[in-house]
Amino acid sequence: MIQVTVWNEFRHEKENEVVRNIYPDGIHMQIASFLKEAGYEAQTATLDEAEHGLTEEVLAKTDCLIWWGHMAHDAVDEEIVSRVQKHVLRGMGLVVLHSGHMSKIFMRLMGTSCDLKWREADERERLFVVDPTHPIAEGIPESFELLKEEMYGEHFDIPAPDETVFLSWFEGGNVFRSGITYKRGNGRIFYFQPGHESYPTYYNEWVQKVIINGVKWCSENRKTYPVYGNQKPFYAIEGSNEK
Amino acid sequence: MIQVTVWNEFRHEKENEVVRNIYPDGIHMQIASFLKEAGYEAQTATLDEAEHGLTEEVLAKTDCLIWWGHMAHDAVDEEIVSRVQKHVLRGMGLVVLHSGHMSKIFMRLMGTSCDLKWREADERERLFVVDPTHPIAEGIPESFELLKEEMYGEHFDIPAPDETVFLSWFEGGNVFRSGITYKRGNGRIFYFQPGHESYPTYYNEWVQKVIINGVKWCSENRKTYPVYGNQKPFYAIEGSNEK
Amino acid sequence: MIQVTVWNEFRHEKENEVVRNIYPDGIHMQIASFLKEAGYEAQTATLDEAEHGLTEEVLAKTDCLIWWGHMAHDAVDEEIVSRVQKHVLRGMGLVVLHSGHMSKIFMRLMGTSCDLKWREADERERLFVVDPTHPIAEGIPESFELLKEEMYGEHFDIPAPDETVFLSWFEGGNVFRSGITYKRGNGRIFYFQPGHESYPTYYNEWVQKVIINGVKWCSENRKTYPVYGNQKPFYAIEGSNEK
Amino acid sequence: MIQVTVWNEFRHEKENEVVRNIYPDGIHMQIASFLKEAGYEAQTATLDEAEHGLTEEVLAKTDCLIWWGHMAHDAVDEEIVSRVQKHVLRGMGLVVLHSGHMSKIFMRLMGTSCDLKWREADERERLFVVDPTHPIAEGIPESFELLKEEMYGEHFDIPAPDETVFLSWFEGGNVFRSGITYKRGNGRIFYFQPGHESYPTYYNEWVQKVIINGVKWCSENRKTYPVYGNQKPFYAIEGSNEK
Repeated sequence: MIQVTVWNEFRHEKENEVVRNIYPDGIHMQIASFLKEAGYEAQTATLDEAEHGLTEEVLAKTDCLIWWGHMAHDAVDEEIVSRVQKHVLRGMGLVVLHSGHMSKIFMRLMGTSCDLKWREADERERLFVVDPTHPIAEGIPESFELLKEEMYGEHFDIPAPDETVFLSWFEGGNVFRSGITYKRGNGRIFYFQPGHESYPTYYNEWVQKVIINGVKWCSENRKTYPVYGNQKPFYAIEGSNEK
Repeated sequence: MIQVTVWNEFRHEKENEVVRNIYPDGIHMQIASFLKEAGYEAQTATLDEAEHGLTEEVLAKTDCLIWWGHMAHDAVDEEIVSRVQKHVLRGMGLVVLHSGHMSKIFMRLMGTSCDLKWREADERERLFVVDPTHPIAEGIPESFELLKEEMYGEHFDIPAPDETVFLSWFEGGNVFRSGITYKRGNGRIFYFQPGHESYPTYYNEWVQKVIINGVKWCSENRKTYPVYGNQKPFYAIEGSNEK
Repeated sequence: MIQVTVWNEFRHEKENEVVRNIYPDGIHMQIASFLKEAGYEAQTATLDEAEHGLTEEVLAKTDCLIWWGHMAHDAVDEEIVSRVQKHVLRGMGLVVLHSGHMSKIFMRLMGTSCDLKWREADERERLFVVDPTHPIAEGIPESFELLKEEMYGEHFDIPAPDETVFLSWFEGGNVFRSGITYKRGNGRIFYFQPGHESYPTYYNEWVQKVIINGVKWCSENRKTYPVYGNQKPFYAIEGSNEK
Repeated sequence: MIQVTVWNEFRHEKENEVVRNIYPDGIHMQIASFLKEAGYEAQTATLDEAEHGLTEEVLAKTDCLIWWGHMAHDAVDEEIVSRVQKHVLRGMGLVVLHSGHMSKIFMRLMGTSCDLKWREADERERLFVVDPTHPIAEGIPESFELLKEEMYGEHFDIPAPDETVFLSWFEGGNVFRSGITYKRGNGRIFYFQPGHESYPTYYNEWVQKVIINGVKWCSENRKTYPVYGNQKPFYAIEGSNEK
């Protein structure tokens, strides 16, 4: 059974009544809830726990880590970021949601600023599948609408994705690469844009289905880790007679 | 005129007579020498200079930075690494040579371990052009030989390259993605594998030509930097009448 | 000087007064006109000329071919398509515009159906630069609007592009990969979506600039063609002592 | 259960005793044999059967088609090639082996010449995994050797692969992108280089494992086919007040 750890900074829910009304137990609990229904083993971890809840022990048994953070990116300890990065490179999946685009762990794995354009205007978003045979798009309609979302728009400062699964249309006139994949080391990474804290996005059935698919896809990567370092020759080396 | 800064840690040349005999003034001086002949403005910078020779002022006027490091990667200051990364993302080109694959700056921009297999066995290497219309391959024969090089072999733990320009064959039985490109932010990056310090690789005419081409290609990227952050809507947002 | 040949099927202009009023001399003449102003040597060719105006002689001296076709794709001779394909693979650039997405030559080079969704509804289109350092985006603002265009929407049945330079937003709620590049053999290909025959799209300054840039980028590819076929060994083959 | 159809032109085995001694029932029967052992439903089809054994009925129930051809590429009917292409675009997997690189179906799907360098010299080949978490590399060692194979060398005139899974080293001094994947329409394609008819390559356990993995990976793609054509607007189109 796939072991998921859902990480949330869990601050908006404590400080803002609008957010708390939508996610009374926190965004992480809602995400863990639908993942459990989908048959995964899901646990949660939050910023204010010791080691942010991401101990070696927790990560060692995690097939896929989900990351939601926004207002407190800076509060995440560099050492924990390094630990998570190490686990991703060794084969742990990583699903980065929404404002996690500027989390330390995502920026660390991308190497770029991961910056973008944004707007909070209660506007419609429509997501389109542009890689229809990708496992993450399985069961998703050709497009689907979110009645209200935060606009995230291009230019999005990321490395060219290995695969672009979703593109988004926003009512106010923007577009965004909203579902993208990367391989880094032995790990697979899926970034998915929807999920502003003040909207009930993680109750949407298609958003849930995409995340369920994303977790599955990111978890299919636990292979033998390559051996690096000195390598004896396979065949005799004669060297050169030439000058 | 293209402004190149050639950075070298400049340690092997001081500590090892074999290396010093090949590069009496340091690897950086030899590289700067053929770049000047090619018509570029080339200056050098080394680890033991103040700020490693990479001040804001130096980087601000650099179109392309070349990086050679090996035994002293750890001695490079994190703050300078961040400064170089910032300049790359803003549009400065970066050519990373040989053992620079595990330099802090390359690892920072890649997000992976950048590890590989290696062997020092005075063996032949043959490089093949696999992207024959790429500007970096311009004027390079279909393949060329280096009589003695250090073997760098797969698996090379890097993100899937944007473009693979060269693949290498090694006498002892290994292969390697030896010439690869990436875009990161506004910057272009070219990694090129040849150049072990104990061989006269940077005197080879084809190696020189590849580096000359690489610098030119990496320097063609000074564009307007995108504006990030809040964006007003282009069109009226009506929102939804649906629940 | 770059030699461009602008190919147009030139049928809508003859049969439809709306189109003729916009492009009295044909779409090809308008495109050739702004290319000449940009300093290129531009000639034209049309479907009803002998060999569609695309003789060996014409193609041999063409650095970049522009293709506009729509209602008469089927009337293009297979032999001419094969001839154009051969020239592209040997290094001639190809810029495919708008409804050319289902031209025989584009489908031949892509291997897919190249089908898409479409709508003629006098709607606004906004194009966004998603690869800001790409030479084709040089001098283009972060986004620009076309007041009326035909909607082309995802899913667009193409191979994953080598590079995605533009994404488009349409007023009616669709998105599209509207500016994409491919390498095929020694040739470079740029597909650019705007240009429905009943709108004055090719008078738009940004559309013109993109096409001017695209022609330049596609023309930078005349390199030595690789040698294929039997190859003598570079090094002695000892074969195996093992069973 | 995955339904595989193994297609072979089945000419070398009839005309050449060396080949017949290795594959007395044909290359297709040997491939079908190990696929059956792996738990797939495997049938065969050959060039000299009616419609080359590739009727609509056969293809409609095929999850993955394997293609081996060499001396008789030209004898394959264009209409059958179009039929196979249609099925690939609709979601049938395709594994192209060895000399199939210049089969009509592979060239049709790639759009390029698919030409390469080659040499028959009883030389060693060593294949390296360069995408260690790819499902096609599952269970494959970091590298493995074939004692005798035909050399296929760069430059290989193909579109940049979506993924490069294997690179090969040849004793005589060449390298090759020997295991590569593409998506085309709803279909997945895997090209794998080993398998010259005069060597017992398809008895090698790793070659078998790669093909078994490749069939599985290519078969994971039967999704709903996108709807193309006219699309009503999702949202009201107001058009422009501007000139």
